[in-house]
Amino acid sequence: MRSLKEMALSARQAALQLAVTDLHQRNHVLACMIDVLKERKADIFRANRKDLLVAEEECLSAPLLHRLTFQDEKLQQVIHGLSDLIALPDPIGKTTLSRELAKDLRLYRVTCPIGVIGVVFESRPDALVQITSLALKSGNSVLLKGGREAIRTNEALCEALREAGRRAGIHEDFAQLLVSREEVADMIKEDQLIDLLIPRGSNAFVQYIKDNSRIPVLGHADGICHVYVDRHADLEKAWQVCLDSKLQNVSVCNAMETLLVDRSIASIFLPEMGRRFREKGTRLLGDEEVVKLIGCECASEADWRTEYLNAVLSIRIVDGVREAIEHINTYGSHHTDCIVTEDRDTAAQFLRGVDSAGVYQNVSTRFADGFVYGFGAEVGIATGKIHARGPMGMEGLTTYKYMLLGNGQTMAAVRAGEIIYTHRDLVEDCPIG
Amino acid sequence: MRSLKEMALSARQAALQLAVTDLHQRNHVLACMIDVLKERKADIFRANRKDLLVAEEECLSAPLLHRLTFQDEKLQQVIHGLSDLIALPDPIGKTTLSRELAKDLRLYRVTCPIGVIGVVFESRPDALVQITSLALKSGNSVLLKGGREAIRTNEALCEALREAGRRAGIHEDFAQLLVSREEVADMIKEDQLIDLLIPRGSNAFVQYIKDNSRIPVLGHADGICHVYVDRHADLEKAWQVCLDSKLQNVSVCNAMETLLVDRSIASIFLPEMGRRFREKGTRLLGDEEVVKLIGCECASEADWRTEYLNAVLSIRIVDGVREAIEHINTYGSHHTDCIVTEDRDTAAQFLRGVDSAGVYQNVSTRFADGFVYGFGAEVGIATGKIHARGPMGMEGLTTYKYMLLGNGQTMAAVRAGEIIYTHRDLVEDCPIG
Repeated sequence: MRSLKEMALSARQAALQLAVTDLHQRNHVLACMIDVLKERKADIFRANRKDLLVAEEECLSAPLLHRLTFQDEKLQQVIHGLSDLIALPDPIGKTTLSRELAKDLRLYRVTCPIGVIGVVFESRPDALVQITSLALKSGNSVLLKGGREAIRTNEALCEALREAGRRAGIHEDFAQLLVSREEVADMIKEDQLIDLLIPRGSNAFVQYIKDNSRIPVLGHADGICHVYVDRHADLEKAWQVCLDSKLQNVSVCNAMETLLVDRSIASIFLPEMGRRFREKGTRLLGDEEVVKLIGCECASEADWRTEYLNAVLSIRIVDGVREAIEHINTYGSHHTDCIVTEDRDTAAQFLRGVDSAGVYQNVSTRFADGFVYGFGAEVGIATGKIHARGPMGMEGLTTYKYMLLGNGQTMAAVRAGEIIYTHRDLVEDCPIG
Repeated sequence: MRSLKEMALSARQAALQLAVTDLHQRNHVLACMIDVLKERKADIFRANRKDLLVAEEECLSAPLLHRLTFQDEKLQQVIHGLSDLIALPDPIGKTTLSRELAKDLRLYRVTCPIGVIGVVFESRPDALVQITSLALKSGNSVLLKGGREAIRTNEALCEALREAGRRAGIHEDFAQLLVSREEVADMIKEDQLIDLLIPRGSNAFVQYIKDNSRIPVLGHADGICHVYVDRHADLEKAWQVCLDSKLQNVSVCNAMETLLVDRSIASIFLPEMGRRFREKGTRLLGDEEVVKLIGCECASEADWRTEYLNAVLSIRIVDGVREAIEHINTYGSHHTDCIVTEDRDTAAQFLRGVDSAGVYQNVSTRFADGFVYGFGAEVGIATGKIHARGPMGMEGLTTYKYMLLGNGQTMAAVRAGEIIYTHRDLVEDCPIG
């Protein structure tokens, strides 16, 4: 078996080769992926049934078993996703700045792949295909570590994608599967070979990666999302948005954890809101005023910083939009936060003032998702502020380089006044894409 | 004196306020900076003379004394830079994606400031004004740590910029000066309050920051730049570009450290190249073949990884552009690399294949600079691949947020088939800038 360093070196070679492929070649790999997945579906389903059998023996919960399942329906979804991805435009080779610096001296900023990306993801095996295909379309190679429960399925899927690479004539090590925790520990040390880490997992796991690696990390630890119901809210809309944000799926990072309500409408809005939440079995915690209004449990300071990932909701009454913004910027996790209001100025104040990757007006926080945004899929959701923010699709996996085309210019000639900067923006693409 | 944590908290408050200012307000701060710098110039010059006096007593070298000097000429440059910056367009509030996701549901990606940025910079005091003004124009606050030798000048300059902030009605703590190494050590721990670190200094210092902080770091450790002279080079152009890249200023990160020459022209190109370099007092090291051709010292493996920052050059003969690309991707530091060639296809192969922030054809590597690129100035040059690459101006100090405007949409309605995704790109700016 190869060491992690050997795998990373090989991934780097694959990435350097991918960086000079054109869209046609990369789309051809995606088309081959569809072919091989179809050809090998019996093997893949068999591997998955073994994973499911072991998981049942280990008494995994029903939702986890559901996520682990990769049979006909999931395969259809994955193939559909690959077809969609083929149809998307090329994210690399795009000119994003064209400037004449001086006579016969032209600067272009052109998008290009990042290189080698390490992704650690949860038990859902379809994520392996989504991540690998997004990375490939944007010219990157990946080192992948999936959940232990899905190991047989992941091995079958990864081997199918590598076979697609071989058929299409690219370096097969554009996708490599890690199988042990030790390999993850080794991977995060390779800061000279790996350009980016995307950990998808528990808060503690993401923190572990950040604390132990020099490689840049994108992703999120917490998802503490808020809905603020303003005095100018349409109350029926507010009830709907709040119910959906909290309960449509309680175990996901874009579910609401804290509800903020403007004092001036609290006594009208909250009793009915409380009734609807309780009807659905939601446990409610509130500040003193909320407790008086709807007789729920008392929230502590820690509740404002808690991601319940369950049918539990903390509720706080605030004095208008300004205090709502302050609460969110203090206690939130910069993921996705929503205001319910019909007033345009108040909405603008909220959307500008809240320091989060997603700021919504009158729509459930559950919409924070790469597929919903039209990115094909996502490799993760970033709550930091560097590079990419929110759901990361292909664009999040690109960077750029500056190409400067001259005819022998020297800085000495600039200093001698023989070359004069013109700094004139051009409307043309770089002749070298 | 306030603790670093208190300073960082206050910087965060200032940043949140700056995030909701408009261009007019931010430009007004820049105009006030010009006023206050002019009013206080006698005090600033006096502080700088004290710094210079101490530096002379400590026997700093002539180039360092020159960099430390902040008198009339530097003030004029700095004021000129501020005027240029006022004229530049607003980097924040720009819509970079507009998409209808479904009926009455519109997604916008809008640029916004990063937040709080910690910058550690070398002895040049004018850098303080450049960095602070670029950060301010893009809506960020800064924690600044300059060189010990410039402490009095930096204090006078920072106090002037803070006074400009007060006059223009913004939070004065948008700019704060750190004065000790202990404060830097404290600063890099504040990953909850500080969004980005930009260390400008020695390789070892940048590495220390990267090793000891969870905060994302942009910048560069090494600047190992290459010039590759191809078989299709115009030789006179090549000699000029090589001399300028190596010798126009030997102590800077964008100077050439290794020269690569195509074997097929080495015997014509190198003897004359060697003569010109020796004429200028350059120490030359080469591989075996180079030693035979021009009788220089023998380069070791370590030389290909060395940033001399001096009139020293390593030279290697390679078999064409492919081997040149491989050498650069193996030994380089992803800063700036140049090919000298008249052949378009070879140039394209080099520009696409070299994995660096700047890839040049027929122009000195000394052009890798924010001012030269028309960015007004730069806060640093990044050789990583995440977020910003190359010289970082205002754009490198921005991020974005996704604004989603709806009318009460829920994920439950999507699942029930009542909401259908349209994913139609729009040509309009976000109504909330």
